[in-house]
This record gives sequence, C-alpha cells and structure tokens, in this order.
Amino acid sequence: MASNKHEEIAQAAIRLFEKKGYHATSVQDIADEVGLQKGSLYHYISSKEDLLMQITHQAINGFNRNLEKIMNLQLPVREKFILAFESHLNSLTSNMSMAIVLLREAFSLGEHQHSVIQQATDQYLDLWCRILDEGLASGEFHHTNSRLTALSILGSLNWVYRWYDSNKRLSPNELAREFANIFLRGIERR
Amino acid sequence: MASNKHEEIAQAAIRLFEKKGYHATSVQDIADEVGLQKGSLYHYISSKEDLLMQITHQAINGFNRNLEKIMNLQLPVREKFILAFESHLNSLTSNMSMAIVLLREAFSLGEHQHSVIQQATDQYLDLWCRILDEGLASGEFHHTNSRLTALSILGSLNWVYRWYDSNKRLSPNELAREFANIFLRGIERR
Repeated sequence: MASNKHEEIAQAAIRLFEKKGYHATSVQDIADEVGLQKGSLYHYISSKEDLLMQITHQAINGFNRNLEKIMNLQLPVREKFILAFESHLNSLTSNMSMAIVLLREAFSLGEHQHSVIQQATDQYLDLWCRILDEGLASGEFHHTNSRLTALSILGSLNWVYRWYDSNKRLSPNELAREFANIFLRGIERR
Repeated sequence: MASNKHEEIAQAAIRLFEKKGYHATSVQDIADEVGLQKGSLYHYISSKEDLLMQITHQAINGFNRNLEKIMNLQLPVREKFILAFESHLNSLTSNMSMAIVLLREAFSLGEHQHSVIQQATDQYLDLWCRILDEGLASGEFHHTNSRLTALSILGSLNWVYRWYDSNKRLSPNELAREFANIFLRGIERR
C-alpha cells in the first residue's frame, strides 16, 4: 500500500516536472496532484530534489540494464547494434515523460546527486563504445573513434524526445531500424 | 547606449537561464546581475518571457541564416554538407550558453511564442533536408528518408552541448568533420 503511494507520487512528479519543469513545480503541486496535504506528502518523500534524483536514477538505470542484457547475448555484433537502437527507443517512447525529466531536468540536481547520474550516463556511453569495439575486433565494423561515434548515436537517439509523436507513421522499432541503418552504412566494413 | 544596455541585459539573462534554468531565475536576479533596480529593468524589458523569446529567436535565426548562406554557395553537395556541420558546431560552441537556453529552456515559452520558435526550427530542418535532396538529385547521395536522416544529424549535433568541453582535444571544426564523415559514409553513393 505504501509502495503504491510512493509510485503514485513518483508518477505525479514525472508528469509535473515534464509539463512545467522541475523548478516551476512546487511540493504543493505534487501534494495536490496525489490528493495529500503537503505535510502528509513528507511522510513519503524527503524533498523535491530527492524525487528528481529517484526518477532520473531509475530512468538511466533502466537504459543501462537493458543494454547490458543485449551485450551478453550470443549474437553477431550487427544484430546487437540494431537491438540496442530498438531497446533505447522503446524505453524512451514507452515512458516519454520520464525520459524528458532525465534528459532535460537532471541538470537541476545538486552537485553530488548530479555526479551520480553523470556516472551512470558515462556507463551507458561505455556500453555503446563496447559494441562498436566488439564490431571492430570481429572485423564487422571498420575503425572509427568509437567514443565520438557513440556520442553521435546517442545524440540522434536522445533527441527523438524532441520530435517523436507516437501518432505518427513510425513505430519505435521501425524508427530504430532506420536510424541503425544510417549508422551501420557508415561503420560496416564492406 | 540604450542598445548596449539591452545587450548587457540579454547576456545576463543567458548566463542566469543557463546556470539556474529559466524558471528558477527571477527578474530580481537579472536586475542584480546588471546592477539595476527591478523597476528600472522594466524600462528595457517587458517581461522575463519576452527576454527568453528574444534570446531563443536570435539563436535559431542565427542557425538559419548561416545555413541559408551555405545553401547558396556554388559547391559540390558533399562540401556544403561538411560546411553545414562546421557552421552548426561553431555557432553552438562559440555561444554555448545561448544554445543551451535555446535547446533546453524554450519549452517554457507560452504557446504562441513557442510556436514561432518551433516554426523557425522546422525551417532549419527543411534546409538540412534540402541539402540531402540536392545530393540525391546530383547523384552524390543515395536515397534515404531525408527527414529522418536530417533529424538524426540534428540530434547528433545538438546533443554536443551536453558533453562538449572546449578544453578537450577536438576543435569545433575537427568534431564537425568527424561527425560529417560518419554520416557521409552512410549516405554517399559509391
């Protein structure tokens, strides 16, 4: 019961942070959204920043866990690469508000908390570099600066939150394959 | 003199919006930053939102103007394509704070003002599509979905504000050429 309330509060915060931004959302707004007095809300959360930390941490950890699973599959690198695009865009679009809070609002965290999120983000970048390096080692990909290529890919994928409309023609998987092909044509050895 | 003051106020707002975010910055903060009383500041600006509009409008118009100039050059598409990457990253990194306000804070504009910025942003996307279509027409590029390719490119380029450190090894032009090559390898007809 308590854990349902925690989840309800997190979902309310995600909606409000996405719509108004973290700074423009007050603890009172969150209390109103879940039908609690502000004082009662503090039984569940320690601060607004704590909520932002919880949301962004959960979001980036989800991206990391999914990509780690893909890395461990016994598949040709090309297929892992495409799966990584699909996984990223499915996570992003299935909880777009949460992704927006991660990508747009995390800068508002205090220094220590922000560095924890930054570390998890760096870990995600490292996983993408590992896919590219694996493709180089297997002879499937030609030599590129894997860090810059990974940053280019992550830019393309993350930016999707700015323009993707789930009512439009492409599903997340279709979009993932289009994007993966743009980069695959650029990095595959022929 | 008055126009210098306007510029000084805009620069102060850019610094504050970048550092604290638009919502967390008060008109009082801006007044303090330029050493004016809040009442006097209102001789120069009509509202905080008006300042945000002015900053984001100037930023996106700069990107559009630069790309239009490149489009009008009599050059092979491949060279225009590389120049477009260089132009984007030079604009972005030479006034990173302004770019961050455009890319991260514009969502806080009211509906009408946001739609003006959105329209200018769409125009920029159209210019990128035109480069890709021109390359297809000239036989230099093979067929791709030019809108998706342009969105992928713009994602890579815009995301740079999240990780680029001007003290690091790569200059904006070097980074631009690395990124342009990733995409060129993907779209050039061989």
